[in-house]
Amino acid sequence: MPADEDTPRGRRLLSKGRMEGFSDGVFGFAITLLVLGIVLHPPGTPLQRVLHAWPAYLAYVVSFLTIGGAWLLHTGLTDQLARTDSLFLRLNLMLLLVVVFLPFPTGQVADALHQHDTSGERVFVTMYGFTLLAIRLLGFTLDAYARHEHLYSPHQDDEEVHRDRRKLLPVIIAYVIAILIGLALPPLAVALYFGIAVYLVVPFREAARLLFGRHSPRP
Amino acid sequence: MPADEDTPRGRRLLSKGRMEGFSDGVFGFAITLLVLGIVLHPPGTPLQRVLHAWPAYLAYVVSFLTIGGAWLLHTGLTDQLARTDSLFLRLNLMLLLVVVFLPFPTGQVADALHQHDTSGERVFVTMYGFTLLAIRLLGFTLDAYARHEHLYSPHQDDEEVHRDRRKLLPVIIAYVIAILIGLALPPLAVALYFGIAVYLVVPFREAARLLFGRHSPRP
Amino acid sequence: MPADEDTPRGRRLLSKGRMEGFSDGVFGFAITLLVLGIVLHPPGTPLQRVLHAWPAYLAYVVSFLTIGGAWLLHTGLTDQLARTDSLFLRLNLMLLLVVVFLPFPTGQVADALHQHDTSGERVFVTMYGFTLLAIRLLGFTLDAYARHEHLYSPHQDDEEVHRDRRKLLPVIIAYVIAILIGLALPPLAVALYFGIAVYLVVPFREAARLLFGRHSPRP
Amino acid sequence: MPADEDTPRGRRLLSKGRMEGFSDGVFGFAITLLVLGIVLHPPGTPLQRVLHAWPAYLAYVVSFLTIGGAWLLHTGLTDQLARTDSLFLRLNLMLLLVVVFLPFPTGQVADALHQHDTSGERVFVTMYGFTLLAIRLLGFTLDAYARHEHLYSPHQDDEEVHRDRRKLLPVIIAYVIAILIGLALPPLAVALYFGIAVYLVVPFREAARLLFGRHSPRP
Repeated sequence: MPADEDTPRGRRLLSKGRMEGFSDGVFGFAITLLVLGIVLHPPGTPLQRVLHAWPAYLAYVVSFLTIGGAWLLHTGLTDQLARTDSLFLRLNLMLLLVVVFLPFPTGQVADALHQHDTSGERVFVTMYGFTLLAIRLLGFTLDAYARHEHLYSPHQDDEEVHRDRRKLLPVIIAYVIAILIGLALPPLAVALYFGIAVYLVVPFREAARLLFGRHSPRP
Repeated sequence: MPADEDTPRGRRLLSKGRMEGFSDGVFGFAITLLVLGIVLHPPGTPLQRVLHAWPAYLAYVVSFLTIGGAWLLHTGLTDQLARTDSLFLRLNLMLLLVVVFLPFPTGQVADALHQHDTSGERVFVTMYGFTLLAIRLLGFTLDAYARHEHLYSPHQDDEEVHRDRRKLLPVIIAYVIAILIGLALPPLAVALYFGIAVYLVVPFREAARLLFGRHSPRP
Repeated sequence: MPADEDTPRGRRLLSKGRMEGFSDGVFGFAITLLVLGIVLHPPGTPLQRVLHAWPAYLAYVVSFLTIGGAWLLHTGLTDQLARTDSLFLRLNLMLLLVVVFLPFPTGQVADALHQHDTSGERVFVTMYGFTLLAIRLLGFTLDAYARHEHLYSPHQDDEEVHRDRRKLLPVIIAYVIAILIGLALPPLAVALYFGIAVYLVVPFREAARLLFGRHSPRP
Repeated sequence: MPADEDTPRGRRLLSKGRMEGFSDGVFGFAITLLVLGIVLHPPGTPLQRVLHAWPAYLAYVVSFLTIGGAWLLHTGLTDQLARTDSLFLRLNLMLLLVVVFLPFPTGQVADALHQHDTSGERVFVTMYGFTLLAIRLLGFTLDAYARHEHLYSPHQDDEEVHRDRRKLLPVIIAYVIAILIGLALPPLAVALYFGIAVYLVVPFREAARLLFGRHSPRP
């Protein structure tokens, strides 16, 4: 049955274009909403207020890099998809649900760090850490489901996705450690989340090649 | 007249790409704006404030799943469209008008549930129920119009859209019952809306197949 | 020189895809931001507050239909474009600048109508009318520029764009009359803007055909 | 190895469609969020409040034109790309990070100008200038990286990108001068930023041709 070959047991095999467009919109909007969390608070001269808002800038950059990293992972995954199915679209919705939620703990962390509110820092940094961890785990679930259901195009093989898979276990361990540290020292946990985001986004090998290496040959 | 075959009586037959792009954008923005409705209210320690905000999380999840479900329905419909016409684009705008409105009653419901404001709960949960019902009815109207005007591609047949059509009547009855219950017991109605959203989004058969079933054959 | 045929005098002829994507995003986002203007004001029971907010719902619907109508016009125009050039992209940016501005006077009109603030109503309804007029005029400018520069595909001919062109002069006259009326009776002007938006969006002929006419033949 | 020709040293060569869609979304949302910075402040009649808000309108237009100009530059660059790679996507994320940040200093500049808060004007106008400069420098970095890595399609040659490259050095010098002037006379610096944005967006040669020139021949 060649016509049924693509639809084992009647599952629907959607074109992936709309899922990509919708996901790009949601990623892009969530990343843009982060700027609404940057607010200056009253006491002090304008320059002092700008400088005292450093937790807001830090939280903005960490969340921006985390969503950006999730978008890069998402692009890498879907680039290789030959098709999608019903469950993949739903799992994708779950990932987006957590991505869209991120601006909320981001703003809370920035406020708590700014007010030196120790118990608030502990609560919100922990909530922030679980949100970051959930984004990564759901990205991994999408990848695992796509492999389990053979949704990937068989002929493509993306080195970057392989690298992201190899990064998964260390990143989960790092998030768990950072969440535990955050119960005692919330600002240190935020610094760790920043480090993890940089580790996820920066392609060290390519950057090293560019900075220290030779010209790439003209293709 | 083969050239006129696609344009009976001069109606304009638009390429559907832009309608999909615009709709994806609006669905994506509306689903992201929901996070602005999550606000913590003053009294209590940070942990208490986070826990007392549960109505905001619940309303966020219900509205997210409802918009997500409407997007899945919309994708299923437009995937099958061979063409669109003027009225279809306008009906689509009406659907988007209600989808974009949803963040407003969502925030009101969360606030009223949080403040144990019984008369507010009744008013806003009812308004919320009518908005959810309107989204589903307008989605059905789009589908009925497309069938009536033969906008669907004749060769395609989407099992998921059939399933959504079969779900329509029970869902409308469930919404009407929930709206009536909400006049007496608003929190119970919200729980019902949550159940309906889960029913609409979760593909139980596929999930059961995945959890208890065998591997799908490689296509 | 067949290779230069498409680039008279070195002007850049861009693929129109990105302009459409960017414009769809901006239209979609502006139309979604309108919901942030719906706010309930304190005095009264919840039901009274919901009912007293009718100016906010009215302004939401008028602005939604106006942006929706502008998007329909934009889609109709760009569907026919064979190419774009530098100036077209800039004129398009001007249109988007006014579309993005619309949520601001929309919110002000809703607030002034709600507070029965007569001098505020006059100021904001006038500002609102000029914004609506500017959107229509810039849409017309885009169309006129595309015709002047022969950007349209010669083989296509869109009846809906012709109809929009025929509607232009009556609509401009109606806007000017409504702006003048708004100086004396602001709420009446808002009712007129609502009527104009309905006139622009509703395809009366198709609706009549659907309601009173026969089935369309299967294509 | 013809199959490897496009992937020197295993770097991933992504299809550029998703990067364009995501970037268009982020540019579009950031440009739309600017309208939230337009707020009227209490004292005075409605007309006075509308007129006294001129700094908000000015800042809105300057930021809108700056983001619009960045989008035009981005479109010009990516139109010519034959492919992208990992680092290009990350550099693009850095550009978007600064573009998304722009609504924050825009709102602060509008507030400070409105309140005649001289020390605030100095601080926020300087921050604003650095943000505008960073957007332009990162756009240039993207272009330089794409040229260095031979990502451009060899057959295309875009006159507008060449023009933007020629504009780069004068624009950077103008920004630096405006930042220095802003330390003494912040409102003058804002006027200069407005002039630079107009210079970047308005295609003077095409406008002159249109206003004073002949008809372009039908292609």
